[in-house]
Amino acid sequence: MTDQKARIGILGASGYTGGELVRLLLRHPHAEIKALTADRHAGQAMTAVFPQFAGFDLPKLVKIEEIDANALDFVFCGLPHGTTQTVIKNLLAASAKLKIADLSADFRLQDPVMYEKWYGHGHLAPELQAEAVYGLAEIYREQIKKARLVAVPGCFPATSISALVPLLEAGAIDPDSIVIDSKTGMTGAGRAAKENMLFGEVSEGIHAYGVGSHRHTAELDQEFSLAAKRPVTVTFTPHLAPMNRGIYATHYVRLVGKTTVEQLHRVLADFYKNEPFVKVLDIGTVPQSRHVRGSNFIQISVIADRVAGRAIVISTLDNLIKGASGLAVQDMNLMLGFPETEGLMQLALFP
Amino acid sequence: MTDQKARIGILGASGYTGGELVRLLLRHPHAEIKALTADRHAGQAMTAVFPQFAGFDLPKLVKIEEIDANALDFVFCGLPHGTTQTVIKNLLAASAKLKIADLSADFRLQDPVMYEKWYGHGHLAPELQAEAVYGLAEIYREQIKKARLVAVPGCFPATSISALVPLLEAGAIDPDSIVIDSKTGMTGAGRAAKENMLFGEVSEGIHAYGVGSHRHTAELDQEFSLAAKRPVTVTFTPHLAPMNRGIYATHYVRLVGKTTVEQLHRVLADFYKNEPFVKVLDIGTVPQSRHVRGSNFIQISVIADRVAGRAIVISTLDNLIKGASGLAVQDMNLMLGFPETEGLMQLALFP
Amino acid sequence: MTDQKARIGILGASGYTGGELVRLLLRHPHAEIKALTADRHAGQAMTAVFPQFAGFDLPKLVKIEEIDANALDFVFCGLPHGTTQTVIKNLLAASAKLKIADLSADFRLQDPVMYEKWYGHGHLAPELQAEAVYGLAEIYREQIKKARLVAVPGCFPATSISALVPLLEAGAIDPDSIVIDSKTGMTGAGRAAKENMLFGEVSEGIHAYGVGSHRHTAELDQEFSLAAKRPVTVTFTPHLAPMNRGIYATHYVRLVGKTTVEQLHRVLADFYKNEPFVKVLDIGTVPQSRHVRGSNFIQISVIADRVAGRAIVISTLDNLIKGASGLAVQDMNLMLGFPETEGLMQLALFP
Amino acid sequence: MTDQKARIGILGASGYTGGELVRLLLRHPHAEIKALTADRHAGQAMTAVFPQFAGFDLPKLVKIEEIDANALDFVFCGLPHGTTQTVIKNLLAASAKLKIADLSADFRLQDPVMYEKWYGHGHLAPELQAEAVYGLAEIYREQIKKARLVAVPGCFPATSISALVPLLEAGAIDPDSIVIDSKTGMTGAGRAAKENMLFGEVSEGIHAYGVGSHRHTAELDQEFSLAAKRPVTVTFTPHLAPMNRGIYATHYVRLVGKTTVEQLHRVLADFYKNEPFVKVLDIGTVPQSRHVRGSNFIQISVIADRVAGRAIVISTLDNLIKGASGLAVQDMNLMLGFPETEGLMQLALFP
Repeated sequence: MTDQKARIGILGASGYTGGELVRLLLRHPHAEIKALTADRHAGQAMTAVFPQFAGFDLPKLVKIEEIDANALDFVFCGLPHGTTQTVIKNLLAASAKLKIADLSADFRLQDPVMYEKWYGHGHLAPELQAEAVYGLAEIYREQIKKARLVAVPGCFPATSISALVPLLEAGAIDPDSIVIDSKTGMTGAGRAAKENMLFGEVSEGIHAYGVGSHRHTAELDQEFSLAAKRPVTVTFTPHLAPMNRGIYATHYVRLVGKTTVEQLHRVLADFYKNEPFVKVLDIGTVPQSRHVRGSNFIQISVIADRVAGRAIVISTLDNLIKGASGLAVQDMNLMLGFPETEGLMQLALFP
Repeated sequence: MTDQKARIGILGASGYTGGELVRLLLRHPHAEIKALTADRHAGQAMTAVFPQFAGFDLPKLVKIEEIDANALDFVFCGLPHGTTQTVIKNLLAASAKLKIADLSADFRLQDPVMYEKWYGHGHLAPELQAEAVYGLAEIYREQIKKARLVAVPGCFPATSISALVPLLEAGAIDPDSIVIDSKTGMTGAGRAAKENMLFGEVSEGIHAYGVGSHRHTAELDQEFSLAAKRPVTVTFTPHLAPMNRGIYATHYVRLVGKTTVEQLHRVLADFYKNEPFVKVLDIGTVPQSRHVRGSNFIQISVIADRVAGRAIVISTLDNLIKGASGLAVQDMNLMLGFPETEGLMQLALFP
Repeated sequence: MTDQKARIGILGASGYTGGELVRLLLRHPHAEIKALTADRHAGQAMTAVFPQFAGFDLPKLVKIEEIDANALDFVFCGLPHGTTQTVIKNLLAASAKLKIADLSADFRLQDPVMYEKWYGHGHLAPELQAEAVYGLAEIYREQIKKARLVAVPGCFPATSISALVPLLEAGAIDPDSIVIDSKTGMTGAGRAAKENMLFGEVSEGIHAYGVGSHRHTAELDQEFSLAAKRPVTVTFTPHLAPMNRGIYATHYVRLVGKTTVEQLHRVLADFYKNEPFVKVLDIGTVPQSRHVRGSNFIQISVIADRVAGRAIVISTLDNLIKGASGLAVQDMNLMLGFPETEGLMQLALFP
Repeated sequence: MTDQKARIGILGASGYTGGELVRLLLRHPHAEIKALTADRHAGQAMTAVFPQFAGFDLPKLVKIEEIDANALDFVFCGLPHGTTQTVIKNLLAASAKLKIADLSADFRLQDPVMYEKWYGHGHLAPELQAEAVYGLAEIYREQIKKARLVAVPGCFPATSISALVPLLEAGAIDPDSIVIDSKTGMTGAGRAAKENMLFGEVSEGIHAYGVGSHRHTAELDQEFSLAAKRPVTVTFTPHLAPMNRGIYATHYVRLVGKTTVEQLHRVLADFYKNEPFVKVLDIGTVPQSRHVRGSNFIQISVIADRVAGRAIVISTLDNLIKGASGLAVQDMNLMLGFPETEGLMQLALFP
């Protein structure tokens, strides 16, 4: 890559993943933010929606229609699912060189039938759906490097696939009895003004939601099935915890045959031994979501259960970074040929 | 009982369960707080440790040695486990009429071998251990009424036993595959000054602790085994969530044979149909811990899993009230012949 | 009053003050909730908007038009300001016996010119505005007892008027240099779905708002001027703190002449010596908002400043109780001839 | 400047400012952490006290006695006040080339009498006290560049001196009527295990502390007096808000003569027009502490009061960064001749 910076567009810049992309890219040595869209806020300065950018030089917020695909090298798309499909189809049609990382759910499922089942309508760009690469860098790195369109994983799947896919691939755990109990911070729900996400509604308490029906389940099934080489149906219960950031996934698994906890740990440690962003902790060490907060790191741990033949695998990441915008930048680095860690090595902000 | 109020002593009044007992008993029509102990704070006013009692007439904090067992009708014992055994033995020896609700773990386990295994030393009052009644009012009501010594359940067991014991008794769920993922607020850790419970350490994040080794597991095994009429070993993982109060237990269970989720719900609804403090929600309704915060209520819910043959049972209570001090007052009401709900019908404080 | 319970209507029951009124009145021995309105939720059960009332028998939510004024003895009106005026005028016209406590700002200002200035439109019921009594029980008790319509003070004014009016009446502090720096919890902003009140927007940070322009300032000026017997213009800056409940007002005052801090304290202690809900702390004791949380108590404190001739007066209350619904019930008790503390003696929930 | 990295020692690495220094310096291109001390944790890895550093190569924690002053170019000293004086005296005696940024209060006050008055004992290194430069880079930049020992300001003084010193120097505000109402997050209290800093004690509420007596007041007086060129005695009240990070200072000032709010704003805007870390917002714009959280930025704002002749000046920063460790790194950059912003341009983490 030459000294010329990649020209970046961010669609949906007024949401939390949009703000996070701006935060990361403003410090990225090879990227320059050239366009920001936010339909409701078109015409405003970025500081009107994110005052923390006071003093930084950023383009004004515009409508999507104002975007010139040929003036950009890379687009991050942080729009609501559904609308995304047509937008991306049009962008890719307009520019042969453009590459895209999509943060919505629109291109994560490979099977159009599954998409329709979970999202309630047929896919509007099925040929792109087939082309899109699932953007979990540690697993699909080589495909991502060659991709034009990457579907950044959902925050829950990013957390749990990182923890369990190596174990399923190794045949170390039983695919039929996986239980995932996840806890997420509030920013996972996005920035839309909803009564049930007001501070007064969600602080000082915890609760499950989408029990047995959360859409991220489809991604989990898909990737677990690919890893296990047979259909997997997972039990997955997300909970909303009174914190801004963080996903903390507690996985209850059964060991296959005489597999030991030590072997589980070794599978993970080997799988991730050269990965810059994945830290496999010592056996029995319990991670905390706050120790990856504000970073692109993920911590994974294996702990013996007191019940024979079972183990507990815990993984945790920052849902807005390694679970969304940071992972998207990691994908961009791969797709544009930059060093994979560029702009992403900030350490966790704790406390 | 006559108009004369029961004379109450609270041992360990400077801790959170102690403060909560004072809060509840100050509004109890048949109770009068006569003695408060707090060794480190002996000589101080209660407002020195709990300023919210400003303006209320309360005895000074004294040392345990200053307690006259014969001047009291009822004692709540909120001391650390271990020390409790001798204190209670001496109190009961000193007064034939005294009754005691113990909030420590010292008298919860029936089997002295189990006690020694989980707590690391032999029991110092094994004859009282045999006599003590497990104070979960909805399950052991009749025994509690006749008891001299009640062991108030731990906050996690109170939550999960309430949810699963009726199902195990009915043979509706498989005792061998129970997974309990619990989340608790910070007050469950008590009021001791520890670095790892500072605001800066535990806010804005979540983490598991005591994985596979939390002592409350022993109570769960004991009561589940009694209900299932065979040994049960449970998988139980507590998590610390950034909130003051609340336990939220997500139970993953397998249905026995052709048992349906509707049948699970009916078992619970029938079991609790006349209970003033237990609310079994409609099938599929997901409770929130904040909706029982500040009250003696517990909410229980049954939700179908997407995996055939599994269900999710959720229960939630306020760990300091229905999980400790409120339940202890409920026990006292039973033991002293007061109406069971006396002093306990405050509604949840939400938001 | 006979054994017959007062028949209560709550207009605007789906908001936070509405929920709090239900919580308090369900435990009030002389009140029975007969009607609940919530226009957007008409037809739903109260548990649909406040699940903590599961198991309690409450009327369904209806539209205001469905209210029969003659079937009620007392109405709490928790509607947005502006709309309230006509609603109350119609209710009082429909029933000669009805009494009302209004929690909006519509009847708090005596001067129609001031109302128009701060609220941007002329008052629609000026004759009622003249009749309405400012519902700060400790100051206007006798007028409240005789009133048909009481305007419950705003939460900030209730906090600061309680602290400073006795001092201004006594001529102890300079009316021209009062600075009030107030901090409120999030529930003060109500339950409307607004982006700027989402958990992600307001947790982990603090900020001022309405600087120099908050409408509660008009109430402060009015009551301070009445107390000082000359016009007072106050500096008042509210801040939003990341907590649910509580107002914490720090008042910076200059002492008049040779007035001492001890004399300030004595004025307050004397003024409130028989008041059940107001606790004047010892000189120098600093209160905490959490020690009145969940109660109808207010704590007031006087602290010497290091700058000669200045003092700091701090007062704190729970904005939803003593700053709104609890004070409204206290007013109702006075207006209907019940004991003033009935239903209001719950102690603070701490922690 | 050569390619050789500065060899850094951090004394007191297990506290919050220590952890923050490690976080910043691990990403600093010209610094290399060579020594970390933490007496109580000597022999442990840094990840034992700060697990977020998992995977980074850091020296083990050692005792202060093990530090070799000649093997280091720069030392950050984050020890408790009092002990610091002797430690620094010895270090500087041992190495002629060593430079030090001290984060304690030990070298902030110029006047030994004042030091003794506020800290209760005579200074143990008065000659160094005279030599030390007050490390507020925007005000003492040139002196810092030449200094061997810099006293990093307290977090409250850094916030308020930045806001008011330019105004006092310009003679724009009355030095005799300054009222500062500050709010801080919990990390300002450090990491010592104290009951009154437990999550249960400080969440869901707010309170003042150190009213009229906080030691940071001495720094405020000193710097305000220097700016005003006459003695200034300030009213300063800190409050503890339930958040981890952030100081939010609300300053109530009187304008001198016919000074306008626009003029106040211009003084500040001019003073800081070339400063990379100080953002003076448009008149009337109210900052939020969360918009500087996690960054070395400070935001300052001027807002007209409704009372004629008064204004409100608000400033906010992250107490662990611009109020401590970030400012210390900024000082190091100046002292070692690195670009002033090196390692410090991370943007705020919001939400």
